[in-house]
Amino acid sequence: MPEQLFSYQQLFQFTRRILQTIGCPETDAELAAKVLLSADLRGIDSHGVARLSGYVRLWEVKRINTKPAIKILHETKSTAVVNGDQGLGLVVAPFGMNLAIEKAKEVGTGWVSVQNSNHFGIAGYHAMMALEHDMIGIALTNASPLVAPTFSVERLLGTNPICVAIPAGEEPPFVGDMATTTAANGKLEILQRKNGVAPVGWVQDKQGKPSTNPHELKAGGALLPLGGDKEHGSHKGYILGAVVDIFSAVLSGANYGPWVPPFPAYVPIPDEQPGNGLGHFFGAMRIDAFRPADEFKKNMDKWIRRFRIAKTIEGQQRVVIPGDPERETEQHRMQNGIPLLKPVIEDLSFLGEKFATPFIR
Amino acid sequence: MPEQLFSYQQLFQFTRRILQTIGCPETDAELAAKVLLSADLRGIDSHGVARLSGYVRLWEVKRINTKPAIKILHETKSTAVVNGDQGLGLVVAPFGMNLAIEKAKEVGTGWVSVQNSNHFGIAGYHAMMALEHDMIGIALTNASPLVAPTFSVERLLGTNPICVAIPAGEEPPFVGDMATTTAANGKLEILQRKNGVAPVGWVQDKQGKPSTNPHELKAGGALLPLGGDKEHGSHKGYILGAVVDIFSAVLSGANYGPWVPPFPAYVPIPDEQPGNGLGHFFGAMRIDAFRPADEFKKNMDKWIRRFRIAKTIEGQQRVVIPGDPERETEQHRMQNGIPLLKPVIEDLSFLGEKFATPFIR
Repeated sequence: MPEQLFSYQQLFQFTRRILQTIGCPETDAELAAKVLLSADLRGIDSHGVARLSGYVRLWEVKRINTKPAIKILHETKSTAVVNGDQGLGLVVAPFGMNLAIEKAKEVGTGWVSVQNSNHFGIAGYHAMMALEHDMIGIALTNASPLVAPTFSVERLLGTNPICVAIPAGEEPPFVGDMATTTAANGKLEILQRKNGVAPVGWVQDKQGKPSTNPHELKAGGALLPLGGDKEHGSHKGYILGAVVDIFSAVLSGANYGPWVPPFPAYVPIPDEQPGNGLGHFFGAMRIDAFRPADEFKKNMDKWIRRFRIAKTIEGQQRVVIPGDPERETEQHRMQNGIPLLKPVIEDLSFLGEKFATPFIR
Repeated sequence: MPEQLFSYQQLFQFTRRILQTIGCPETDAELAAKVLLSADLRGIDSHGVARLSGYVRLWEVKRINTKPAIKILHETKSTAVVNGDQGLGLVVAPFGMNLAIEKAKEVGTGWVSVQNSNHFGIAGYHAMMALEHDMIGIALTNASPLVAPTFSVERLLGTNPICVAIPAGEEPPFVGDMATTTAANGKLEILQRKNGVAPVGWVQDKQGKPSTNPHELKAGGALLPLGGDKEHGSHKGYILGAVVDIFSAVLSGANYGPWVPPFPAYVPIPDEQPGNGLGHFFGAMRIDAFRPADEFKKNMDKWIRRFRIAKTIEGQQRVVIPGDPERETEQHRMQNGIPLLKPVIEDLSFLGEKFATPFIR
């Protein structure tokens, strides 16, 4: 599919202006643009500017509040619950993570569960905020129900990602950012566009039969938890997705399971809403609350180097350290530009015309 | 394979006596027997009395200290690092978890990383200790290297389990207890005894080729991270196993990756030891540090009930709530007895003779 390259600055400024046009204060618009674009830089194209018009449509139907009064509902020395006031998840999430970091400075760790938010971009951005403080960062979020638990035909969970970011010394940090499904929805979308064949274990049809048709998801099928089927451990992917859902939403008072408000603005919110908006969960652990940071970092370097030189299976180039591919993509795209597909360019152009903020092609 | 039933009390008393005979103080022997037997009760047979002689052999080669002076090396209000002094993991782990619980009482959450320990039985026992305090419990441990990271032929990780235990109200708690591999080693051992066929995605041979031969693990092959191969998300199982390793051992100062001391006493400890013993990680989060416990529990009940009634795939009886099968097995075995296989009975009889503590058959 034809692609065109755009500079980071170009996409950042456009996103920032659009967000200001729909009412975000300047600092929020800047932050949200930075969070959104971090997905494009890191190669997680499904979560970047391709979603900008989706956020705008949510604002149009009054499901996003661009001037939120984010509040702490309850807190202890190491915990808090935050109400995001229906703000952009891209702004609410950094608030939550910063609060976790502040608490970790005081008592060693900080844990923040967030309600009344919506899609927060990539989990990686938020977890990585901890790194510059010599802390381990954790970010979880629930999401629109697209995933069937093992043995079910119903979609009861989102792709509910987990990110853990761990600082190292001379080596770059370990950043494990993963959906709790066999494949993220973004990967399925790529196959849908190509009319490709999905590996067995990614999706099932509406009867719950394994399928290789990427379009089954839109025909009443479901994404599958990591593992794919029981024999291959899908009950474990289901456990992980469930834990993310519970930490993000049952702990905070957000909606969980099938009641999570969907991202597409044309999909109605379920009639029943046991909580407010969707939920996130953030954790920060100060390294030196456990052992001296330099000792830890030396050992992390040793861990990373041992795995990096691990003997590979014939035909494979290297054992990947989590975070390496995304960091390499970020360096490359910052220099060479971010490729966008034609439908995304058209979508952004349309958005630009609508808000009198031309998308320069 | 022929099995024989034994009462919980019979196995508990035998285990307790053996542990006292090798030098455990009475309270430690009781606690360790309780932790070990919780595996047999919950149906995780590979981690119960079947391993008793393995612990004894580790003591014989002086790799287990039955009179440990467990110490807190460093702590903050919400964290601690514990040195288990080479004690039985079955005793060191409850010490760590209790410390996490005490910290959570004070500041909302507690997080304890443990070094210089060894195998701690099932993660579930420790995580579930938090439940009676209306807390969420988390237990992780690293383990003997048997698992190859994605694209590698080398065994660099253990089956590194994760358990998360979450209290509910009228419903029983949610207890997700899982190895971060496609299949736990215990499941492979069952196939080895039967000369059965392993599903693709469980093991690879020593060249790193997918294999269905459960004996490949003993011929230089490896267990595979949850997902099985890259196309099915094994890089995610690898991330999870790595995070467990780092939290348990790099954070505490234990051995990590390929340097974790192996459980079988006949396998020598690697020459290089970057830390002490193996490592665990425990977390406790007080529910009411986030929201009132009764509100949380009502919503957990709602979560559990919704998943329990989820429409099943034809031919499947129910959607399983994590923890249900193990709790049902526990109730059944407490009433009807614990089945042991003939080789396990012979092993325990031999142990009994050796230590003049007859294993009543």
